Amino acid sequence: MTDAIDPAMEIADLKAQIDDLYASIDIFFVLTMGIVCFLMQAGFGLLEVGSIRAKNASNIMLKNMMDASVSAVAYYLIGYSIAYGTDGSNSFIGGTSLMALNTLSPVDYIYWFFNYVFAGTTATIVSGAVCERCQFKAYLIYSFALAGFIYPVCSHWIWDSSGFLNGKVYDFAGGGAVHMVGGVAAAVGAYILGPRKGKFIYSEEKGKKVPVEIPGHNATLAVLGTLILWFGFFAFNGGSSYTIAGEAQYLATGRAVVVTTLGGAFGGMLTMFWGYFATGAWDIAWVINGLLGGMVATCSGANAQEAWAAVIVGLLGAAVTQSQVLLFEHVLFIDDPLNASAVHLGAGAVGMIWVAFCANPEYAGEDFTGIFYGGSWSFLGWQIVGMIAYSSWTMLTSGLLFGGMNYMGWFRISDEEEEVGIDITEHGGKAYPLDDEWMSKASVEEESVEKVAA
Amino acid sequence: MTDAIDPAMEIADLKAQIDDLYASIDIFFVLTMGIVCFLMQAGFGLLEVGSIRAKNASNIMLKNMMDASVSAVAYYLIGYSIAYGTDGSNSFIGGTSLMALNTLSPVDYIYWFFNYVFAGTTATIVSGAVCERCQFKAYLIYSFALAGFIYPVCSHWIWDSSGFLNGKVYDFAGGGAVHMVGGVAAAVGAYILGPRKGKFIYSEEKGKKVPVEIPGHNATLAVLGTLILWFGFFAFNGGSSYTIAGEAQYLATGRAVVVTTLGGAFGGMLTMFWGYFATGAWDIAWVINGLLGGMVATCSGANAQEAWAAVIVGLLGAAVTQSQVLLFEHVLFIDDPLNASAVHLGAGAVGMIWVAFCANPEYAGEDFTGIFYGGSWSFLGWQIVGMIAYSSWTMLTSGLLFGGMNYMGWFRISDEEEEVGIDITEHGGKAYPLDDEWMSKASVEEESVEKVAA
Amino acid sequence: MTDAIDPAMEIADLKAQIDDLYASIDIFFVLTMGIVCFLMQAGFGLLEVGSIRAKNASNIMLKNMMDASVSAVAYYLIGYSIAYGTDGSNSFIGGTSLMALNTLSPVDYIYWFFNYVFAGTTATIVSGAVCERCQFKAYLIYSFALAGFIYPVCSHWIWDSSGFLNGKVYDFAGGGAVHMVGGVAAAVGAYILGPRKGKFIYSEEKGKKVPVEIPGHNATLAVLGTLILWFGFFAFNGGSSYTIAGEAQYLATGRAVVVTTLGGAFGGMLTMFWGYFATGAWDIAWVINGLLGGMVATCSGANAQEAWAAVIVGLLGAAVTQSQVLLFEHVLFIDDPLNASAVHLGAGAVGMIWVAFCANPEYAGEDFTGIFYGGSWSFLGWQIVGMIAYSSWTMLTSGLLFGGMNYMGWFRISDEEEEVGIDITEHGGKAYPLDDEWMSKASVEEESVEKVAA
Repeated sequence: MTDAIDPAMEIADLKAQIDDLYASIDIFFVLTMGIVCFLMQAGFGLLEVGSIRAKNASNIMLKNMMDASVSAVAYYLIGYSIAYGTDGSNSFIGGTSLMALNTLSPVDYIYWFFNYVFAGTTATIVSGAVCERCQFKAYLIYSFALAGFIYPVCSHWIWDSSGFLNGKVYDFAGGGAVHMVGGVAAAVGAYILGPRKGKFIYSEEKGKKVPVEIPGHNATLAVLGTLILWFGFFAFNGGSSYTIAGEAQYLATGRAVVVTTLGGAFGGMLTMFWGYFATGAWDIAWVINGLLGGMVATCSGANAQEAWAAVIVGLLGAAVTQSQVLLFEHVLFIDDPLNASAVHLGAGAVGMIWVAFCANPEYAGEDFTGIFYGGSWSFLGWQIVGMIAYSSWTMLTSGLLFGGMNYMGWFRISDEEEEVGIDITEHGGKAYPLDDEWMSKASVEEESVEKVAA
Repeated sequence: MTDAIDPAMEIADLKAQIDDLYASIDIFFVLTMGIVCFLMQAGFGLLEVGSIRAKNASNIMLKNMMDASVSAVAYYLIGYSIAYGTDGSNSFIGGTSLMALNTLSPVDYIYWFFNYVFAGTTATIVSGAVCERCQFKAYLIYSFALAGFIYPVCSHWIWDSSGFLNGKVYDFAGGGAVHMVGGVAAAVGAYILGPRKGKFIYSEEKGKKVPVEIPGHNATLAVLGTLILWFGFFAFNGGSSYTIAGEAQYLATGRAVVVTTLGGAFGGMLTMFWGYFATGAWDIAWVINGLLGGMVATCSGANAQEAWAAVIVGLLGAAVTQSQVLLFEHVLFIDDPLNASAVHLGAGAVGMIWVAFCANPEYAGEDFTGIFYGGSWSFLGWQIVGMIAYSSWTMLTSGLLFGGMNYMGWFRISDEEEEVGIDITEHGGKAYPLDDEWMSKASVEEESVEKVAA
Repeated sequence: MTDAIDPAMEIADLKAQIDDLYASIDIFFVLTMGIVCFLMQAGFGLLEVGSIRAKNASNIMLKNMMDASVSAVAYYLIGYSIAYGTDGSNSFIGGTSLMALNTLSPVDYIYWFFNYVFAGTTATIVSGAVCERCQFKAYLIYSFALAGFIYPVCSHWIWDSSGFLNGKVYDFAGGGAVHMVGGVAAAVGAYILGPRKGKFIYSEEKGKKVPVEIPGHNATLAVLGTLILWFGFFAFNGGSSYTIAGEAQYLATGRAVVVTTLGGAFGGMLTMFWGYFATGAWDIAWVINGLLGGMVATCSGANAQEAWAAVIVGLLGAAVTQSQVLLFEHVLFIDDPLNASAVHLGAGAVGMIWVAFCANPEYAGEDFTGIFYGGSWSFLGWQIVGMIAYSSWTMLTSGLLFGGMNYMGWFRISDEEEEVGIDITEHGGKAYPLDDEWMSKASVEEESVEKVAA
């Protein structure tokens, strides 16, 4: 030991640097996962556009792009503060301290970003359920409301330390707070809007109302969107711990990613075979339902369960998703063109319940010991309380929102607009004009035109 | 303390390992941001292809793919050395030491990669402005020139320690060196090429020349491209510090990502509403202009400003972008089919100026104290010097380049080719042939064919 | 030094934390590279769908989505264990210990994920070669077999410490174990299936059998897919070291990414010019062959060679790829619609051989000193042993697999199905139905329908 060095001071310096490194890795991790997750907006857009008719393609794509914008504005102005702000916060709702990121600690910028991406996801889930018949301004309004208010309140309950579900309900990556909330709002929106014209018809032969399949215009893009969503789901579930630095942390992340993979893969396999036996075809929509439902079902306990449990919850999530699809189509006659509610509400609920059984206390903590590991049934009770809270709140607020817009005449487009397509009536033209259409358009616009400029 | 351990040596070892960790995180960070950023080539390609006519789709997609290739070759052979090489370097231009990565330090490989992606971005900006009427070989030539020479010189000025703007101009992520350079070259190219046939016509009614909208053939892909660009922008701005390890570093990165988000989101909102009041439709092209313009405007000071400043610069960037679009279309009659110059030049300039006002010295350093924080007006003066330098250089060099190619007859395609579409005349066939077209093609090619092989 | 601190204990603590940080960075790295790499499934899907006829678009996209699912199931149940399991393992094959991830160490979850993505890639290579004429259930069967058995055995040989090629053959990112294996299986599948109807015709004029070009239906998506594959390749080659923490580690990763970039860029340039001189057009398919072939050729030695060597191997890989394309089309009359075998087998073999020449012992270790660096020719000998082993094994197993399915009548669709398109015969409808097709469909389905429900 030389005279020049004081080990205690040196060691204190090193400790500070090591803490700095831990923090750096985690911030980098949250950033990367947030960026990957952001691309889910493109995934949702493509899945939606491919699954609907060409005449409404611009509408749904613009909707997804604006969803990312409106959510950012809403989450910046009020959403994040409603979730995590302090002045005036209580167990039900956050305070005003973080509005416009006013007093946001510099280190929390990156958490704002990740949470904004989640808020945008919640809002975008709804768009699939109300597409092809919803006014564009209604999209703008409900995106703002969902990302700025409805979802932030739910996330306050579960993820803010003062929330009344915090520490009692286990909802790791938002199978409840994101997916069930989005899925309930989707169902309420689709119900209030009513079905697309011609979706349900009365069959003399069968003596009852039956659904008619309205095929999407581009299966290629629908599958591309699903693959991008899968890509994003790794980050959605993987990133939800906000940390990967440290052994317990990276083990949890690795587990979450494998659980996500298996949930989706087994879910997709199940509905592929079910669809084949039910329809005689290897049907893309069935596979997508199962794949996404399987992944959504892993969200609540992605970091808390073993691989075998992921296989089971993926199968259960896919089964419940497809069952809800059939229920909406054949019994309730609710027209959800993207099956958004089934994928997010049905499978989200499966995941919320399943975690009460499969949570390994080694991963989830002693307070969240799953029933399979000798845990108490009150764990399940609290999960159900959480589900009821999310659902009731979302049903109430989105019911008021969509009902109010409906009452004002701001929600559903007219029959003529639905016939022609929203792209022409609201967005100035078709999504896929032929190469020469501009010529006739120009000649209509400029009847007096006589010579082409040099 | 045991005998076996010499704390001083142990501590020295630990220090070395900690330095190693800092470096590892930063390299990993630059790699990840570079990879994300690379996908912007796909984003540009999709935005461009969706915004033009189907008959030139293969052309523009191949152009984007070759842009990534040509830029890599050019930046490998000469570009990186012109920017950062030493032998013979001066304040204007780098030296020859790094040609073909000759004496490149191993640690700099990853920086080459990130900078190559930026060089490719600069080159690809131009393609939108000259599309639908530019010869394919002209693309190859100017991509090489931009990525290998014009852009590297500008990046030498600002980012090489010997550059004459280094330490005087603040241009964090290249709002000037990338976007203004690309935007000026785009404007020069579009001006020299002249408008597409039928773009501007003389209206008897109005008694003046008016623009005709030539709609793109696929709005879905245009929006997808914009979302991928947004995804890439997080890495473009987030990664430009080359470092995330350390508190100051990760705070800066977090800020840059939030600033990017807000700039884009508010910019897109502004032009969405402006477009609605101007055209009566929720117009996709207007939204894209504002979104991208808002993000470009954040580039120069992405890490140096507060969230509220990002809101303002996003709005300003979007407003100037859309204004330049209208100026080009209605006053100057320059046909830039993608509004590439407006998005990159107009908004890039806004960001260069804005940073002189909004730069927080706590983030940007005392030498770059924004005017709002009591800084000197000479900061603004230097920003303007930088803007003039970038613009003059690019105008001169790209003017010579495009003018020279035009003089040689290598730049614009013939009227017949423009009528038929470049895919058929230069690329061997249409981008979207119908399923049976190969049959007739085959029979034409092989008139003597009589029997189909088993 | 205060009394309260025992430096030795403190130092031991710090050491443990530093080890923890190294591990955290590496796990985060493998996760990120795996996620990026996963998107290659979308890249393959788009390249394939764009390169074939519209009538089979749903089929190929669903195939890619199920490939990701089936591979996950197969690799979970048996594949990973066959590669790296211990009970009963030998130099040829792994054991049963890791089936269903049974005894998988928690830290290995993330490695399972990365390796699963590779297994899926191997399986998906084949789909390009057999597309437009392969039954859907055959896809499911061979995906399971490739990802669950054929590929895992090869990866055991080379990457498991007990494998008989381990330590003797240099195959960093699987130019042999992934690409050659996929490429051989693709060739065997395409050969056994036979060409698409009308692909090869007898030309009276030329007096011989000639190929007919069957153009893909969407060049835009084919290029998009290629750009996504390029994006993914950075992670495929960059991530194959599983580590970036530490100087040697991050230098290797940086080199691998630059090598990948240059290999692809120079390869694409070569075939672009070659294609131009051969066909008179700037042909997209030629460029794609060279770009992908150039990148595949870098895989075996991505981390072991200098930049100049990457330029050479990129050019060689592209040249061999395109030569194999011409050989299959004009001499062997094997119909591989995506040139999958040429890109992966031809260029993979180039990379396996090249590494024996170019491997810098400073990077690859003394045991792998390239011939250019004074190494022994036995290095080349072992590379050839590896290539023969991979190829023979894959030819045998895939021959049995495809031959067996063919014998059972499970492999090729009927002539009528090929005429109509697989989307209608196996997947319930066209990928791109027109907006009104559902109306006629509905009226056919429900002839008795008389009134539309409210």
